[in-house]
Amino acid sequence: MNGAEALARTLVGAKVTACFANPGTSEMHFVSALDRVPGMRCVLGLAETVVTGCADGYGRMTGHPAATLLHCGPGLANGLANLHNAKRAYTPVVNIVGDHATYHVGHDTPLTCDVAALAHPVSRWVRLSRHAREVADDAALAVQAACGAPGGVATLILPADTAWSPSAGPRPALPVPDRPQVESPRIDEAARALRQGQPAMILLGTSALSQAGLSAAWRLAGATGAALRTTTFVARMPRGQGRPPIDRLPYAVDQAVAELAPMRTLILAGAPAPAAFFAYPDKPSELWAPGTHVLSLAGTGEDAETALIALADALAAPVRPLGPPPAPGPGLPHGPFTPAAFGQVLAGLLPAGSIVMEDAVTSGRGLFGPTFGAAPHDWLQNTGGAIGGGMPTATGAAIACPDRPVVCLQADGAGMYSLQALWTQARESLKVVTIVFSNRAYRILQAELHAVGATPGPASEALFKLTEPSLDWVSLAQGMGVPARRVDTMQDLADALGRALRSQGPFLIELLC
Amino acid sequence: MNGAEALARTLVGAKVTACFANPGTSEMHFVSALDRVPGMRCVLGLAETVVTGCADGYGRMTGHPAATLLHCGPGLANGLANLHNAKRAYTPVVNIVGDHATYHVGHDTPLTCDVAALAHPVSRWVRLSRHAREVADDAALAVQAACGAPGGVATLILPADTAWSPSAGPRPALPVPDRPQVESPRIDEAARALRQGQPAMILLGTSALSQAGLSAAWRLAGATGAALRTTTFVARMPRGQGRPPIDRLPYAVDQAVAELAPMRTLILAGAPAPAAFFAYPDKPSELWAPGTHVLSLAGTGEDAETALIALADALAAPVRPLGPPPAPGPGLPHGPFTPAAFGQVLAGLLPAGSIVMEDAVTSGRGLFGPTFGAAPHDWLQNTGGAIGGGMPTATGAAIACPDRPVVCLQADGAGMYSLQALWTQARESLKVVTIVFSNRAYRILQAELHAVGATPGPASEALFKLTEPSLDWVSLAQGMGVPARRVDTMQDLADALGRALRSQGPFLIELLC
Repeated sequence: MNGAEALARTLVGAKVTACFANPGTSEMHFVSALDRVPGMRCVLGLAETVVTGCADGYGRMTGHPAATLLHCGPGLANGLANLHNAKRAYTPVVNIVGDHATYHVGHDTPLTCDVAALAHPVSRWVRLSRHAREVADDAALAVQAACGAPGGVATLILPADTAWSPSAGPRPALPVPDRPQVESPRIDEAARALRQGQPAMILLGTSALSQAGLSAAWRLAGATGAALRTTTFVARMPRGQGRPPIDRLPYAVDQAVAELAPMRTLILAGAPAPAAFFAYPDKPSELWAPGTHVLSLAGTGEDAETALIALADALAAPVRPLGPPPAPGPGLPHGPFTPAAFGQVLAGLLPAGSIVMEDAVTSGRGLFGPTFGAAPHDWLQNTGGAIGGGMPTATGAAIACPDRPVVCLQADGAGMYSLQALWTQARESLKVVTIVFSNRAYRILQAELHAVGATPGPASEALFKLTEPSLDWVSLAQGMGVPARRVDTMQDLADALGRALRSQGPFLIELLC
Repeated sequence: MNGAEALARTLVGAKVTACFANPGTSEMHFVSALDRVPGMRCVLGLAETVVTGCADGYGRMTGHPAATLLHCGPGLANGLANLHNAKRAYTPVVNIVGDHATYHVGHDTPLTCDVAALAHPVSRWVRLSRHAREVADDAALAVQAACGAPGGVATLILPADTAWSPSAGPRPALPVPDRPQVESPRIDEAARALRQGQPAMILLGTSALSQAGLSAAWRLAGATGAALRTTTFVARMPRGQGRPPIDRLPYAVDQAVAELAPMRTLILAGAPAPAAFFAYPDKPSELWAPGTHVLSLAGTGEDAETALIALADALAAPVRPLGPPPAPGPGLPHGPFTPAAFGQVLAGLLPAGSIVMEDAVTSGRGLFGPTFGAAPHDWLQNTGGAIGGGMPTATGAAIACPDRPVVCLQADGAGMYSLQALWTQARESLKVVTIVFSNRAYRILQAELHAVGATPGPASEALFKLTEPSLDWVSLAQGMGVPARRVDTMQDLADALGRALRSQGPFLIELLC
C-alpha cells in the first residue's frame, strides 16, 4: 500500500469523508488512491477558492473537517483567502497540499514554491510529510489538530514521492481533547460584575453561539438587564423562532462605539475584545469606552457555552421565555430593495431548517432584525473579511446538510471573486438559492471614500463602479448550468425565491439594488 | 502631502503609469491620491488574480513595471498565483499591498494576516513601510528592485496610517543597474566546447529571447550545427516571419530526454539546467544524459543576448539567412480541432505585430511548429505552471500595447481560474480575441493518470471531467460584456477568428475540441 492509499484510509477512518479538490499532476497518486478507497465523496471546485470555501462551509455545519486537495504552492495560494475565513470561523479543515517529490524540489522547476511559508498564516498546524511511511501518522495528527478546540486549519503537505512510495498502512484516529473548561474563579468574577447592576453587555463569540449558549445568555439578560450582542460576524448562529433574538455588534465604528459607550461592564464570552474592523484616522481601534471593565468569561478556544450556563446558574437566573415572535408585516413588501423589506421577504419565505450564508457587507448589514421571526434556521457569515466566501461556503454547507435548503446572500462585487462555485452547485445538484445583491458597485468603498472626506475622481470612479459593462448574473449562472432570473422589486423577489425554494437543484436570483 | 500622494507621485515620476487594482478600505487614501495625481491609468480587475496577471502581461510587453494595488493579506493571497508566474517570467512588477494601520495590527481583527509572509515566496524584494515619511523612499526602492536584472516582483506593504499621515513628499527615481555581463572566460569556454564539433544544444532562456539574441543563436547553429531550443515555457519570444524558427524543449519528459540524449554539450544561455516539470516514479528529474557536458554561458540574471553575440563573433559565425518561410498548407484546414490544423489557421490569420498569450498545456503544446511562417508576432506563455495566467496576462499585454491585437489561447480548465479578466477586457475595450480550447476536461490530468498506469474510478471521473454540466463559455463571456461564438470546426474557427480580428474590442471563441 502506497502512502497515498494509507493517507486516504486514515482520513476515512477518522470520519473525514468529503474531499473538496482541484488536483494536479503531483496529486495523481492520491486521486488514484481515492479511486480505490471507498467512503470519500470527492467534489470538484473549478478554482481553489471554491475548494477551500466549501471545506469551510462543510466544517461549520458538521463540526468535523472535510479534506481539501490542492496543487502545489500556487494552488494553495488560490485557496488561501477562504482558508483565512475558515481560520477566523474556527472551522476544522484538513488542508492537503500536494507538492513536488522531495528530491525534485532542488531543481527549482516552474511550479516550485515555498508551500509551508504560504500555509502558515492561515493554519494552526503545518507539516510536510517526508516519508511515505509517515504520511498516515501525519494525517491522523492533522485531523486531531484540525478538530482540537477551537478548531482550525491543519495543513498537510504531501510530496509526490510520499504518495507513491510504500507505506506502513493506515493509522487509527487520534483522540481529540475536550474543549477547555473555564475555571470557577472566572465565573465568579463575571457574576460579581453583573451583580453590581451597572450597565453591562455580554459579547457572544463563536463557541457561545449554540442553542444552549444563547439560551443561557438570554437567561442572563433577563436576570441582570445585560445587553446581548454577537460579534459583528458570526461563524454560525441558530436563529429564528424558538431562538433568542440577539443582534450583532454593528460594523460601523461610530454605531458600535455608541452601543458600547454606556456599558460599565463588557463580558466576553468566546469573543475577542471588540475592535474596529479597519482603523480610521480619527476613530478608535478599541470600541469600548475607556472606563469600561472588560472581562473575559471564556476565551475563543474555551467552552463559552458551558461558562454561560454556569454563570446563569451562579446568578440563579430563571429560565426566560422568548415571548411571541414579532408579528409579520402587513403583507409582503413591494417596491425596490431596502434591507428592511428584503429581510421581511426572506423572513416570510425561509423554510424551517434552512441555512443562510451571507457575504454582503453593505446589503446584508441590516438583516438580523427583520429576520428574528423567521422559521428556525442557521445563519453563517463571512468571518475573515476575505470577500468571496459566500457561494463557496454555501456550497459546502449544502453538501454537509443535503436535507436543508441553503440561501446564499451574495454581494455582487464579492460574488465575482468566486462565481465558479455555481458550477459545483450544478454538478452536485445542490439545493442552494443564491441571491446576488446587484448594486453594480463596490458600494462599501464608495461609502468609505465619502467617509474620508474625499471627492470622487477618475481613479475611484474606475475602481469602485461595476458598470461599463454591467455584469449579467443570469448569463453567468446559466453559463455554469445554474438556472437564474433577474428581479428588481420585492414582489418579484418573493415570487422568484418562493419558486426557487420549491424546485430542485440550485437557482440564482439577481436582485437589482 | 500625505504618504499616499507621495507614493503616487514617486511612482509616476519613475514612469510607473499603470495601476492594476482591486482595492479595499485600507487603500482608500491611496485611491484618493490617485484621484488627485495625474499620469496613472487605473484598471480594475474583479478578482486579484486578474490584477496580478495584468501586471505580468504589462511588464512583459513594456519591460517596465506596472503597479498593483491589493487589499491586505487575503487580497494578496488571491493574486499570488499570477505573481508566481510573473516571478518565473522575470517580469518587473511593483506589487503594492495595503494593510491595517501599524497600531491596529495588534488587535488581530478579522482581516489581520501576515502579509509579508505571504509575499516572500513570490517576491525578490519585500518591504513594509513603517512611517509616512519613508513611503516615497520605499516606493523608489521598489521600482529599482523590480527593474534590476533579471526583473521580478517587488512587494511594498503600505499600512493605512503611512498612507494618510504627512510625508516628506515624493522622491526621484533611482538608477537601475545594467544587466550583468558575462566575462570572456565563459564565452571562451563555450566557444571551445562548440569547436569540438560534438553534438551540442544551446538552450535559450528569457534573457536570450530577443531578436538579437535569437539571431546570434541562429548564426551559432549555422556555424556549428548546434541544435537550438528554448525553455519549455517562454516569457516572451519574437516569432514568425523574419525570426529564426526555434522550437521549445518538449514538456513531456520522455520527449525531452530523447531530444537531449544525443547531446555531448549543452550550453545554457539565460536558461536554467533543464529539469522535468514534475517528478515521476520512474523518470529522471534532470533531462540531459549523464555524460553531457552542461555549461552555463549566461545565468538567468545575466545578459544572455550579448553573450550569444560574443560567442557567435568568437566563432566567426557568419550571418545566416533564415530561408523562405514555410509554404502555407493547401488552403485552410477543415474538420475538427487538431493542434496542427489549429496552428495552420492561426498562422494564416495572425496579424503582423500581434501578441499571442498561451495558457493551454494540452492543446497548446504543438503550436510552435505550425506557426513559424506566421506574420511577425510575440508569443507569451504561462511560465510558472500556475494555470489561469492566460486571460489576465493577455489583458495586461493589450493595455501595454494598445495598437497590437492580442490572441489569447486559453485552456478551458485553466480559463475558469480567472474568467473575470473578460470583464476588464470589456471595460477597457481591449483588442483581445480569446480562443477557449473547450475539451471539457482537465485533459492533462486524464493523460497523467493514464501514465501512472491507474484505471479511472469515481474520484478521478469526478475530478478530471468538466462535464455535467458543460460550461457554456458564450454565456460566461456575454455575462461580462464580451461578445462570443461557439465553433467546432476549423473552417468556422477561421471565420470567427477573422471576423473577431477585424472588429473592435474583445471577442471570445469557444472552440469545441
